[in-house]
Amino acid sequence: MNATPLLFTPLPINTLVLPNRVVVTAMVTRLSGEDGLVNKDITDRYVRFAKGEAGLIVVEASAVHQSKSGPLLRMCADEFIPGHRAMLKQMREAGPSKVALQIIHFLKIARSGWRQTVDLLTRAELAAIVQAYGEAALRVREAGYDAVELHMAHAYTLSSFLSAKNKRRDAHGGQSLEARLRLPSEVLVRVREMVGNDYPVGVRFDGEEAIKGGYGLTDSKYIALRLAQLGADYISLSAGGKFEDAIKKEGEPLYPYTGYSGDRTMPPASYPDGANVYLAEAIKQFINAHGYHTPVVTTGKIATPTLAEEILQSGKADLIGFARALLADPDWPRKARAGRADKIVRCIYGNICKNLDENFKQVRCGSLWPRKYLHAPSAPEDTAPPAWAESGAALTARLNENGQVRLIWSGAEDAQGVYGYEIFRAVNGGPFVHLTSSLTPVHVDAYALAGNRYAYFVRAYDFAGNRSADSNVAEIFVETRFALPAGKTLELDGSVEAQKGYVA
Amino acid sequence: MNATPLLFTPLPINTLVLPNRVVVTAMVTRLSGEDGLVNKDITDRYVRFAKGEAGLIVVEASAVHQSKSGPLLRMCADEFIPGHRAMLKQMREAGPSKVALQIIHFLKIARSGWRQTVDLLTRAELAAIVQAYGEAALRVREAGYDAVELHMAHAYTLSSFLSAKNKRRDAHGGQSLEARLRLPSEVLVRVREMVGNDYPVGVRFDGEEAIKGGYGLTDSKYIALRLAQLGADYISLSAGGKFEDAIKKEGEPLYPYTGYSGDRTMPPASYPDGANVYLAEAIKQFINAHGYHTPVVTTGKIATPTLAEEILQSGKADLIGFARALLADPDWPRKARAGRADKIVRCIYGNICKNLDENFKQVRCGSLWPRKYLHAPSAPEDTAPPAWAESGAALTARLNENGQVRLIWSGAEDAQGVYGYEIFRAVNGGPFVHLTSSLTPVHVDAYALAGNRYAYFVRAYDFAGNRSADSNVAEIFVETRFALPAGKTLELDGSVEAQKGYVA
Repeated sequence: MNATPLLFTPLPINTLVLPNRVVVTAMVTRLSGEDGLVNKDITDRYVRFAKGEAGLIVVEASAVHQSKSGPLLRMCADEFIPGHRAMLKQMREAGPSKVALQIIHFLKIARSGWRQTVDLLTRAELAAIVQAYGEAALRVREAGYDAVELHMAHAYTLSSFLSAKNKRRDAHGGQSLEARLRLPSEVLVRVREMVGNDYPVGVRFDGEEAIKGGYGLTDSKYIALRLAQLGADYISLSAGGKFEDAIKKEGEPLYPYTGYSGDRTMPPASYPDGANVYLAEAIKQFINAHGYHTPVVTTGKIATPTLAEEILQSGKADLIGFARALLADPDWPRKARAGRADKIVRCIYGNICKNLDENFKQVRCGSLWPRKYLHAPSAPEDTAPPAWAESGAALTARLNENGQVRLIWSGAEDAQGVYGYEIFRAVNGGPFVHLTSSLTPVHVDAYALAGNRYAYFVRAYDFAGNRSADSNVAEIFVETRFALPAGKTLELDGSVEAQKGYVA
Repeated sequence: MNATPLLFTPLPINTLVLPNRVVVTAMVTRLSGEDGLVNKDITDRYVRFAKGEAGLIVVEASAVHQSKSGPLLRMCADEFIPGHRAMLKQMREAGPSKVALQIIHFLKIARSGWRQTVDLLTRAELAAIVQAYGEAALRVREAGYDAVELHMAHAYTLSSFLSAKNKRRDAHGGQSLEARLRLPSEVLVRVREMVGNDYPVGVRFDGEEAIKGGYGLTDSKYIALRLAQLGADYISLSAGGKFEDAIKKEGEPLYPYTGYSGDRTMPPASYPDGANVYLAEAIKQFINAHGYHTPVVTTGKIATPTLAEEILQSGKADLIGFARALLADPDWPRKARAGRADKIVRCIYGNICKNLDENFKQVRCGSLWPRKYLHAPSAPEDTAPPAWAESGAALTARLNENGQVRLIWSGAEDAQGVYGYEIFRAVNGGPFVHLTSSLTPVHVDAYALAGNRYAYFVRAYDFAGNRSADSNVAEIFVETRFALPAGKTLELDGSVEAQKGYVA
């Protein structure tokens, strides 16, 4: 029985047919040089994704203009095409994924903290932006990409026009939603003219800005409708990632994603799973009700094939976007399709990748990948799982003085290397669920609460995702004294006995 | 037929029975003096609420300690009791509402921007906070209030302990949820000891902090469970309102609610209706599944009796909290109960009240109340509606150069004064819905979008909420040229003909 039938059902996007509903959304890598050319590191990163067999891989944002911006790909002149063409050739040899390139325009920022805002742009500059997008899109087609994606999300130019914080006073200004929509609409229309009706053009934009005075669903459902009306072939939803709440670091230019809105773009472990799905759900429902069936991509802390399939089955989105989950394990789609979700190296949303980006360093999975790996480990031929020593994992659970549970166990062994450990927890006799993962054989559970009985076991995994046998189970009861003022004997009403069973 | 049967079903809270499910949540008024005593303005404000017949009125936060803080009520010594007792007497004569007092502890802030944080408090200071809450709660009971509410939300002391940003390193610190829960738990236990088991003790806290690194539902469902386990009689949910993202104003101390998290506390018009209901829904579901049926109060942009009833009927909350909606019209519950929702003066979430608070001014409804009114107008005996002049309202709708619709009409007349105008809009032949309200006979619709046909009418209302006859209907089609680059003739796919009907 196929546990994820919809996730692996092909989906047509204009003339293109995606082999499945898994989308690798555009991620900053900081792997290119200042020259904006595709290099070996970039190529290796995307070939690695291609081996994993996602339905659509969106290659990172490439500039439509000749602005200085550190390690960022460019598509602002024909000289950039050959590098992309060569990378695409390797990607197509590696797997069946379709590939899009995201194109971006951004405004100037300075280390002083100054940044160019949309109200400073002349009409001639607006016309140049429209034309640059059109020409870059044509280059994307000429390079052999299957689709082009227009970046209208986060802190960049087109998003800043859509923004409720757009301060212009003219026909491209913030005094009406229609005026805010104008430049993004002009770009989409010009791109369509350049690439033709038969070429897939997607758009990524924010379902919610998540800043003070920013827009939310009340506006974004109309923005999506307009993009659909203008013929966008898919709508990919993000959230936040704005300059307005970015945290200033002395001597560095402002960087979006450093503030609260950046947490909303890449929800950390403390957020619920599928934290941004409500945006896709509301927007899809709205455009569908208006007679448009433009596919909608949702993203944001979707870790498991089960959750991805549920979102599709319930009609909340048409495609599932993954950034961190597939950075952690590019083989996620291949393993899920083969019914081997148990071999996926699960993202724990520790956001070390996000931190590396914020500190202008090359982006890798610092939570899970073995140190010094620039790309995800790969050992597809390895089927031998890690093994515990003869004395077993010897997992122990002890309470510290604050009622936290400290877990320690013995390391496992594997011929090709142990990658890490998954930690599972059950509360008050309920089912075991994956709590988090760790590179080292120790973990402190800071979410154990008084009055509850916890059981834990751990599992080692290797580079191929093979899992060891489960460790012994370590159980512990957190006494109610941890919840109560010293000397009090009040019993918690909600003692284990009173509880109806485990609820996650 | 009763359109709101659940909203007007009584609800027991410990030994108390609330006559209905409408809660006036605690609101800053800035009407008291620096002396912290109940005065005439405060009394008038709450007597006005009592006339409206809400089930529970929570009187504004009163300090449990003797800290300087501008115009804020206090309950830190017995001398403050008589003023409350006198106010309660007047409130009980005015209507059947039950009345609670919210009690608060806050830390020091300075105009320099410095603020005292929880990690600076000594153990002795923590013990003093616990004791001050206990003693203040006893005074609340002695003053004759029906219940006491502990303020654990927003930027104040107990919320700062619950916060994921709690920087303490000890047993009351941020290294585990258990430790963050400790001081709030100690306070609740001490208050219970002081007021006895038969006295209703409610707690208000944030379902989501809405700041970078702050907690969300993953934590707040456990916080609610612990509060239920410790015997809280109701749980009232707010969101945000933190110092961490407050906007610094030169020469003024930091004020919460000025940043994004403050928008989440009091969602402005751009947010969807019932913007925070998802917090109550998830938390109620969680504690219910653990066997606790502590009533949950939801708040945040709930304007109509219909929406309030829907929330109750769908089991997402047990009580509906209103701040701005009942500030705008304290007679909301009385009118809703009488089936006269059509007489409610509807809050338009313009947040002038919020702005007044942020600027340290007396809080009133600046969007809707006639100028110079310190409290909501009242004219219950007036049944004569406003009337248009003989030539009618003469409503006209014109497009400006950006495609915005400018509405102008002739003012109405009323013997006791016209209060304002409601503006209704229909899109592409769909139903008319309330768009907003205006004090003056002019409105610019900044959300009209190209390719749509809009119809508008207006209705005048007087101080009692009596409505005039509907004006004439003014119709207008916003041409697609407003959505498209100059010179382009591309037709919108989503022209009026293609649309399946109106979708809000």
